[in-house]
Amino acid sequence: MDPFDATSPRKVLERVSTLLGCSPTSNEVATYLDNHDELKHLREQFLLPKVAELPPSDLTLVDGTKQCIYFVGNSLGLQPKMAKKYIDEELDKWAKTGVHGHVQGSRPWAWAENNIEELMANVVGAKAEEVALMNGLTVNLHLLLLSFYKPTAKRHKILLEDKAFPSDHYAVESQIQLRGYDAKQSMLLMKPRPDEEVLRTEDILDTIEKEGDSIAVVLFSGVQYYTGQLFDMATITKAGQKKGCYVGFDCAHAVGNAELKLHDWGVDFACWCSYKYVNSGAGGLAGAFIHEKNAHTVKPALMGWWGHNLKTRFRMDNDMDLLPGISGYRLSNQPILLVCPLQASLEVFAMTSMAALRKKSRLLTGYLECLIQHYYNKDEAQPHKPYVHIITPSHPEERGCQLSLSFSVPIAAVFQELEKRGVACDMREPNVLRIAPVPLYNSFSDVHRFVTVLGSALAASKELQQ
Amino acid sequence: MDPFDATSPRKVLERVSTLLGCSPTSNEVATYLDNHDELKHLREQFLLPKVAELPPSDLTLVDGTKQCIYFVGNSLGLQPKMAKKYIDEELDKWAKTGVHGHVQGSRPWAWAENNIEELMANVVGAKAEEVALMNGLTVNLHLLLLSFYKPTAKRHKILLEDKAFPSDHYAVESQIQLRGYDAKQSMLLMKPRPDEEVLRTEDILDTIEKEGDSIAVVLFSGVQYYTGQLFDMATITKAGQKKGCYVGFDCAHAVGNAELKLHDWGVDFACWCSYKYVNSGAGGLAGAFIHEKNAHTVKPALMGWWGHNLKTRFRMDNDMDLLPGISGYRLSNQPILLVCPLQASLEVFAMTSMAALRKKSRLLTGYLECLIQHYYNKDEAQPHKPYVHIITPSHPEERGCQLSLSFSVPIAAVFQELEKRGVACDMREPNVLRIAPVPLYNSFSDVHRFVTVLGSALAASKELQQ
Ligand SMILES: Cc1ncc(COP(=O)(O)O)c(C=O)c1O
Ligand SMILES: Cc1ncc(COP(=O)(O)O)c(C=O)c1O
Repeated sequence: MDPFDATSPRKVLERVSTLLGCSPTSNEVATYLDNHDELKHLREQFLLPKVAELPPSDLTLVDGTKQCIYFVGNSLGLQPKMAKKYIDEELDKWAKTGVHGHVQGSRPWAWAENNIEELMANVVGAKAEEVALMNGLTVNLHLLLLSFYKPTAKRHKILLEDKAFPSDHYAVESQIQLRGYDAKQSMLLMKPRPDEEVLRTEDILDTIEKEGDSIAVVLFSGVQYYTGQLFDMATITKAGQKKGCYVGFDCAHAVGNAELKLHDWGVDFACWCSYKYVNSGAGGLAGAFIHEKNAHTVKPALMGWWGHNLKTRFRMDNDMDLLPGISGYRLSNQPILLVCPLQASLEVFAMTSMAALRKKSRLLTGYLECLIQHYYNKDEAQPHKPYVHIITPSHPEERGCQLSLSFSVPIAAVFQELEKRGVACDMREPNVLRIAPVPLYNSFSDVHRFVTVLGSALAASKELQQ
Repeated sequence: MDPFDATSPRKVLERVSTLLGCSPTSNEVATYLDNHDELKHLREQFLLPKVAELPPSDLTLVDGTKQCIYFVGNSLGLQPKMAKKYIDEELDKWAKTGVHGHVQGSRPWAWAENNIEELMANVVGAKAEEVALMNGLTVNLHLLLLSFYKPTAKRHKILLEDKAFPSDHYAVESQIQLRGYDAKQSMLLMKPRPDEEVLRTEDILDTIEKEGDSIAVVLFSGVQYYTGQLFDMATITKAGQKKGCYVGFDCAHAVGNAELKLHDWGVDFACWCSYKYVNSGAGGLAGAFIHEKNAHTVKPALMGWWGHNLKTRFRMDNDMDLLPGISGYRLSNQPILLVCPLQASLEVFAMTSMAALRKKSRLLTGYLECLIQHYYNKDEAQPHKPYVHIITPSHPEERGCQLSLSFSVPIAAVFQELEKRGVACDMREPNVLRIAPVPLYNSFSDVHRFVTVLGSALAASKELQQ
């Protein structure tokens, strides 16, 4: 009986520990899972920081020569090893040939990003011509909303999460104001039920059903940055479109994390950044998607020469021959120095599939969840023992790799103690630590080590508190 | 008598040749000028391609071991030597510390571009807080127009060049359409007089005077990309504002080329790219300017988290505390990999001043003009001799470093023959070669060599034609 056939991460762990004749919490389980991880070689494609190099590490508490526990790929992904090679190639081309680099070599600067759009499309479940790599995420969100949000007196609302990522919140707010509407009335903010932390799909559908006639655009994140909740994009898309709304997603935390099928789900538009799970480096080239069904009906509001048919773009006759779909939304030429690391990363994604990554991810995050619950659940019998609460939904279908944790002890202290011990993770105001075991490069041993370290961090925070 | 005190480039050349006892066309003059060039050491700060490395070079016609004649800095500037070092430092930081790079090191990614905005401001004659480095040029032009172009039934026009750069043309066209106006009626395109090739300032002022009441925005380029004409920005700004218009400039070809005083001139807004005379590499980080007088009255139409007060930006409370002026226009976090080469280049600019660069530039381009006129003017006595016509204004105050040339022989052939002989320059449809001797890294000997090569190229093109 293959232990990996079990129906839940918890069951896999039970089967493995039975097989090994050890406790499910034993380090042997982590080792076994790593040895049987079909994607473990992908870790070799990335540069993993050493504990000693992380500024907050306290080398009296942790061995500096070890690789750190990098659980913050949800904020900034690790550097793909090939990134530097590709960048060096382009710097060399620039040094040696100057302007000729625009049309020479394996990455002609004038259309280098076009060459990797198919790789990107594979990661988000789209056709190559539905995807553009350009600008930053918030810029792309605006370019898309300028076309998809055209409010009328009857249909002027945008439905989004109450605690959407700030940039998305401001983007929506300003788009509404730009169109002459009142953000207070036109921003429909979905809150969780009282005493709940994440949104229920049934409530989202209910809101769409009730308010849909006045909603111009439904805009959710794919994975919520704070709670780690993965929304049911297929269902939300269907429900919104049934009511005549456009439906779009900010996939910043979903791309390279969840298995997206933007095309098959019929999503109208989407955008994402590439510096998180897509490992392109700080401020990397962002992505945008428009479904092919909209390619000829939805036009860009703002135009630039890069949206012009490439064949005749340089005739410079000021007569716009607009490319269809997302391609027509290109404004400026794109930076080659950002194409290189993104290519390096997308080539790693091409060594596997999002389905395979997700399969590993479920188990990896499920393992983390089981160990946290085992060790740090609230225990009524030990009222003084610090405990951890997981905000992120427990069902693997409702989350990506990230778990958002809150604590019975002050969070800033826990965060600091983890950082001292070689853990890279992140704290988000007001009250969560976001822990992201990334299937591309994190291991089951990382998870096991983390849980041990978390114990010391909790104990130390508790001491500090006293 | 210092020959460099003469009132025009031509007179400088005459004095130098008298001093040397040679013809003004002699190579000795070039050598003398290079020896007396106080900025000649700046060339060492850049990587100059060798002839053999340029793909079109024909090594039966030219010595491949020589540095090429790089006269295309108006399209893509050369690589500053420090660019690679800075990029390597950041790649190293990413490899070693991952997400910690956001706040660590000499270029904390989260605000690295802010650290070089003062250097950029010095190049455009602005205060640091009037400048933002972000996005691409066309993106910035749009962000600015969304605020400055708010048409009313009475005042709905944008005045721009008839042959503005395509992206600017499309940007203006789409902004007008976005606001519900008709581009045909609201785009006021300034054409040169019949049989003239550049615009006269008097005609621009006349148009502003006559049509000003219906003009919302006057938008010119600083230096015209095709003709090389440098507009009288101070005068145009004054005239436009007197009529109640906002006045902005696309400084793509002016930044690092002309001496800009955006602040002193009272320009309302401006934008530029950095990959031409500012040498930041293909698709480099673009710039934007809003005069401080507008900082509290003109607000961004589109908002993102990067426009939020940095001190409280990461509180993530979705309550916008908008930065004043251009800073509030920031949408997305900026790519560190683009900050590095831009920093490297701006540091070279900081080794001198735009005034000093302009002083050299006048002489350098004046020298080119004199030699071309000497050798390749139309000669009625030799009707079959190919000749060169300079479109760019002859007065140094009305141009930057670029000369735009047209020819009596087919231009594509001349271009090809120049390229075979180790010249990097560019051809623009329909009919010019743009030749840009850049004062930062080009020499008087480059000009002299170019003029000799141009002779062979013309002769070869003529042969091809027969
Ligand atoms: C005058 C002018 N405007 C706009 C552009 C377009 O620049 P980008 O592709 O950086 O938006 C250019 C590029 O050469 C330009 O010269
Ligand atoms: C959901 C979401 N939206 C928007 C942004 C803003 O991204 P950018 O600065 O790339 O525009 C982020 C960045 O983390 C994000 O997570």
